Amino acid sequence: MAMNRTINNITVVGTGVIGNGWIARFLAQGYDVVAFDPAVGAEERTRKAIDHAWTSLEQRGLALGASKDRLRFINTMEEAVAEADFIQENVPEREDLKKSVLGNIDRYAKPEAIIASSTSGIIPTTLQSNLQYPERFIVAHPFNPVYLLPLVEVVGGESTDAAIIKEACGLFEKVAMKPLVIHKEIDGHVADRLMEALWREALHLVNDGVATTEEVDTAIIYGAGLRWAQMGPFLTFHLAGGEQGMRHMLEQFGPALKLPWTKLKAPELTDALKERVIEGCESYAGNQSVADLEHKRNEFLVKLLDLVEEYWPESKSLVKE
Amino acid sequence: MAMNRTINNITVVGTGVIGNGWIARFLAQGYDVVAFDPAVGAEERTRKAIDHAWTSLEQRGLALGASKDRLRFINTMEEAVAEADFIQENVPEREDLKKSVLGNIDRYAKPEAIIASSTSGIIPTTLQSNLQYPERFIVAHPFNPVYLLPLVEVVGGESTDAAIIKEACGLFEKVAMKPLVIHKEIDGHVADRLMEALWREALHLVNDGVATTEEVDTAIIYGAGLRWAQMGPFLTFHLAGGEQGMRHMLEQFGPALKLPWTKLKAPELTDALKERVIEGCESYAGNQSVADLEHKRNEFLVKLLDLVEEYWPESKSLVKE
Repeated sequence: MAMNRTINNITVVGTGVIGNGWIARFLAQGYDVVAFDPAVGAEERTRKAIDHAWTSLEQRGLALGASKDRLRFINTMEEAVAEADFIQENVPEREDLKKSVLGNIDRYAKPEAIIASSTSGIIPTTLQSNLQYPERFIVAHPFNPVYLLPLVEVVGGESTDAAIIKEACGLFEKVAMKPLVIHKEIDGHVADRLMEALWREALHLVNDGVATTEEVDTAIIYGAGLRWAQMGPFLTFHLAGGEQGMRHMLEQFGPALKLPWTKLKAPELTDALKERVIEGCESYAGNQSVADLEHKRNEFLVKLLDLVEEYWPESKSLVKE
Repeated sequence: MAMNRTINNITVVGTGVIGNGWIARFLAQGYDVVAFDPAVGAEERTRKAIDHAWTSLEQRGLALGASKDRLRFINTMEEAVAEADFIQENVPEREDLKKSVLGNIDRYAKPEAIIASSTSGIIPTTLQSNLQYPERFIVAHPFNPVYLLPLVEVVGGESTDAAIIKEACGLFEKVAMKPLVIHKEIDGHVADRLMEALWREALHLVNDGVATTEEVDTAIIYGAGLRWAQMGPFLTFHLAGGEQGMRHMLEQFGPALKLPWTKLKAPELTDALKERVIEGCESYAGNQSVADLEHKRNEFLVKLLDLVEEYWPESKSLVKE
């Protein structure tokens, strides 16, 4: 299999919200894109979605030569994938459907073309099991709106060639994304497991009559949400620990893991887990002290607060009389 | 009890990270603040923390007459709370300690002074049980850094006077905060339950060897974190549902709640829960269509991406060779 191939021709199969997001991103970065979707009216809906996304993409900055006109819809799967160097599949999240569509892509594509699935939950080993060339298959799971959010989870299956993962990451970086390679296959990958935990807790709070949907949203937006655009949960708590960082934080708040907060049972906070978490934060922070990170966080939050005050989506007070 | 009292004198009891955050916020908004903390070196540490916070507070804009010099440390609880109209307690999170400190505050403060505790987990009915004037006691739980993040959860106990909650919210709004009144007492209130669910899932992922702390943080920062500074989980999913909003979203992704994503068991998605969630989102959106909200979200994300690219705390690629 040829290494360091050049990826010029991109085909997107399935043009719902996620497929259209990929198309808009690739076009804005100056790629030719072929789209395939047998649904009636698909092309019209996609072109409308691209028009909608384009305003934001122009504001972010288009690549030289980028054009909405470099999108072609093609009527058969066979023709749509024939010339593709990279194919992104985005059909509905049903294992049988995905396997059947991926089987067709695999049949008609060049053997060296990379095939990626946007699946949010199914592991790649399952999806690649019937392919003729399973080594070129990966999961590449993006986040809505795909044309703006940088994250893409990249997961290989048991048969995936490691070089394919690397090449796909190269492509994603070229289109201004942040590829996160997940090294262990689990249902829901990593990001959706985290989001689902928050989402399920939110549903419990509403179900138990503790808070309304609006109150849950408020509890996120005006607090932790402001921090999470810059720092994840681990670095956030590293800063909460003061000068000693995560080490102090786990000593002080570790016991709270046993408290009946959330419906989610915590893992046992063993010494091994503690060390893994502390070491992870310290290595990530590198030579930046907690004070350095706090300084950066504050600069960021000041600018972010100016920005979000303009865009928080509600206007009425949440204080009930 | 006098209604619509004027709150002029503020006392902060306990000057750790949270207490100091409150002091900085009140000073920046032009209040006189008295602080009490018997720990050796407390005043020096607090003044240093205020200096540190002040740069950001100046950037956000100080109130007329605001000054770091309007903070006085006083050596006894009795004197420290004697003149206070509002007292914020921030001692370590231990029920016995908090009850003892709150008992002293209650003893020495004017009967009409409002007493608030920063407790992140203990319910107000427990904390007010031994007070002489329990009706003026509330939980007011802020988020780190308190001088920048707007959210404060306000919770009354069984004996709390509803008018006190309203007056406290008035004060919090005056100091540029977003009070969220929680109507049902539960351990951890609302925001920390949501954060803890994410945090526990993150610890499980690290414990199970699925992801490193850095990978977990990346999975949040570059994806959902960017959305959560503007929209909570409910409105986010309202937009993911397309034109039909949350109604379509629950139909399409409702079954995924049964999937083994996250260690958190989901609530049964009954018709009653569905309707509560849909109605909540639709009422919150008001006359804004999903397309309107998407437009606003995109404008926000474009500006946010420009900003965060400067401040994301890591520089090295996460793609492993």
